[in-house]
Amino acid sequence: MRVGVIGGGQLARMMVPPAIELGLKISVLAESEGSSAGIAATAVGDYRDAQTVLDFAETVDVVTFDHEHVPQEVLRALVDAGVAVHPGPDALLYAQDKLRMRERLSQLGLPVPGWAAVETPSALDAFLAEYGGRAVVKTPRGGYDGKGVRVVSSATEVADWFGDGPLLVEELVSFRRELSQVLARRPSGEIALWPVVESIQRDGVCAEVIAPAPASAGRVADMAADIATAVAENLGVTGVLAVELFETTDDRILVNELAMRPHNSGHWTIDGSTTSQFEQHLRAVLDLPLGATGCRDPWSVMVNIFGGLAPERMPLALADPTAKVHGYGKEPRPGRKAGHVTAGGEDLDDVVFRARAAAAIFED
Amino acid sequence: MRVGVIGGGQLARMMVPPAIELGLKISVLAESEGSSAGIAATAVGDYRDAQTVLDFAETVDVVTFDHEHVPQEVLRALVDAGVAVHPGPDALLYAQDKLRMRERLSQLGLPVPGWAAVETPSALDAFLAEYGGRAVVKTPRGGYDGKGVRVVSSATEVADWFGDGPLLVEELVSFRRELSQVLARRPSGEIALWPVVESIQRDGVCAEVIAPAPASAGRVADMAADIATAVAENLGVTGVLAVELFETTDDRILVNELAMRPHNSGHWTIDGSTTSQFEQHLRAVLDLPLGATGCRDPWSVMVNIFGGLAPERMPLALADPTAKVHGYGKEPRPGRKAGHVTAGGEDLDDVVFRARAAAAIFED
Repeated sequence: MRVGVIGGGQLARMMVPPAIELGLKISVLAESEGSSAGIAATAVGDYRDAQTVLDFAETVDVVTFDHEHVPQEVLRALVDAGVAVHPGPDALLYAQDKLRMRERLSQLGLPVPGWAAVETPSALDAFLAEYGGRAVVKTPRGGYDGKGVRVVSSATEVADWFGDGPLLVEELVSFRRELSQVLARRPSGEIALWPVVESIQRDGVCAEVIAPAPASAGRVADMAADIATAVAENLGVTGVLAVELFETTDDRILVNELAMRPHNSGHWTIDGSTTSQFEQHLRAVLDLPLGATGCRDPWSVMVNIFGGLAPERMPLALADPTAKVHGYGKEPRPGRKAGHVTAGGEDLDDVVFRARAAAAIFED
Repeated sequence: MRVGVIGGGQLARMMVPPAIELGLKISVLAESEGSSAGIAATAVGDYRDAQTVLDFAETVDVVTFDHEHVPQEVLRALVDAGVAVHPGPDALLYAQDKLRMRERLSQLGLPVPGWAAVETPSALDAFLAEYGGRAVVKTPRGGYDGKGVRVVSSATEVADWFGDGPLLVEELVSFRRELSQVLARRPSGEIALWPVVESIQRDGVCAEVIAPAPASAGRVADMAADIATAVAENLGVTGVLAVELFETTDDRILVNELAMRPHNSGHWTIDGSTTSQFEQHLRAVLDLPLGATGCRDPWSVMVNIFGGLAPERMPLALADPTAKVHGYGKEPRPGRKAGHVTAGGEDLDDVVFRARAAAAIFED
């Protein structure tokens, strides 16, 4: 069985180990030489070019993704050519376009922040007046890790964004914490969920994840699981789905964002679950039975490493024999996600301390 | 940090996932195209040719091995050229030559079966007379998985083996079971041991492994650990060392064979231990701190898959969501080690059943 991944980032990279373990062939269509997933890169080319992607697809049994940026017309060309594509274009649309996602989830009656599509500054100002004077404006497409997102109190703050189609404006949610529910779904319908996790962001970027989310057993976990399952089933998601959630100060759970691929909030599963999100994604897109999603430790904590993993610091980072250090094989660059550390154990304070301590070794 | 592995078999293949996870670069000098470790093969060539191996070594920071067959003169040429080689030739000699191994372990006072070096049929017949009429004859070099080993009651049964240097003859040990003690040792001396395991052979080939070995806590585990540690330290082993042991019917622990590389009896660690033998081997040969060797489950059971992993049987093998199925990406061939399954849990009978059931799916 041959899996093809479009995009050569760290998510594609982390699909390679479970592909090797399962005895699969994996190949990657990378954007450039020397990508994070370079060890599996069998082609280098532009994922926006239909012929490039079709040629790549001929070498594999199923096509999946490292990112959501493959244009709909390219995805449709694959499907028209009879290629198995997971997730498919009809589902992926809602991870590509935040406005379409908000429309669809609202139609489904799923809990979302107050939102509107605004095409003019006056429409945005009207929304601001209705929602207490501050709101979040998002470009519907292309944003990630805080890019394409601004908190504004006046339409003038996004004056540069108008004129290129409608913008999404959302209520500035008063939330207690951010959660993430990751699951996988097979084309034949089977779903497996990991426990809901707490995701701690810094500057709009995921910094730490605690699994399971503290004090989430019962109502919070049930709501998160129900919402994510409804999203997966109604949108026809195949492969891994991450549903980013707000737990509001008034005890609601609202959907923030969707990602239809392995997600930073699921990296802990490599070390902390019987089946990692990367193995599960491969199983799901190949329509193989899903693996068990139980936790290996009462608590797992993942801390991202930004910048780079200087080799001379590896001995110190590995000095804690239980710290699992992961590097993405990228050239160092300030602020870049370069790796992560996962720790596990029975005492959450201790686990947080150990994960942070190992990750901090690489800080400048 | 760049690790180079000589040999493209499944042991090299299984070093690739932890290399990717740790952010290392790994490359393989494979015997042929399409090897099990092909995804990391940066060169194809003859490991018996010093120049081929020297050229490969120039691309990496440390050279290690998938097998023990690299000739001493090639290993020495690497060392003379200033290449870091782990395990080094002085240690590897004892995994290459069973006669030298028996001599050295006897000198060290470590427990071994009765043995002799015999160059003539009459010397072998004399040994047979002394040891009850039956014994095990081994070619000192090149044997593995039961090859180069014969149980004989007369020198005529190995008449074809004489004339090419001394043979090793060993007492036919009356053993209760076979054990294996796997550890890793860094060049700087740190050692980490996994628990001693029971290894069940069929036709001279490892078929199943139970970790830890049942009823081994205490005396048996201590003896196994002490013996393996003494071997590692006295022979200057770096990287993973597997010491195959006999537990005799009169309650002795004797050394059977040595392997200075990840070993079939350690495959369970991929799923069953905080640190797999493959990750540990990489850490050890790079002289990085060793990882924790604790067990993730009270019991882990590994069952080998022989022949091949027919893709159409994967859904059935993965139907048990906790079974971890590993394929080596080899062309199917009768009797060939093609993969393995590991299961874990609290009830040994149940774990054995589940591991065997998943592996049996691939049987003809």
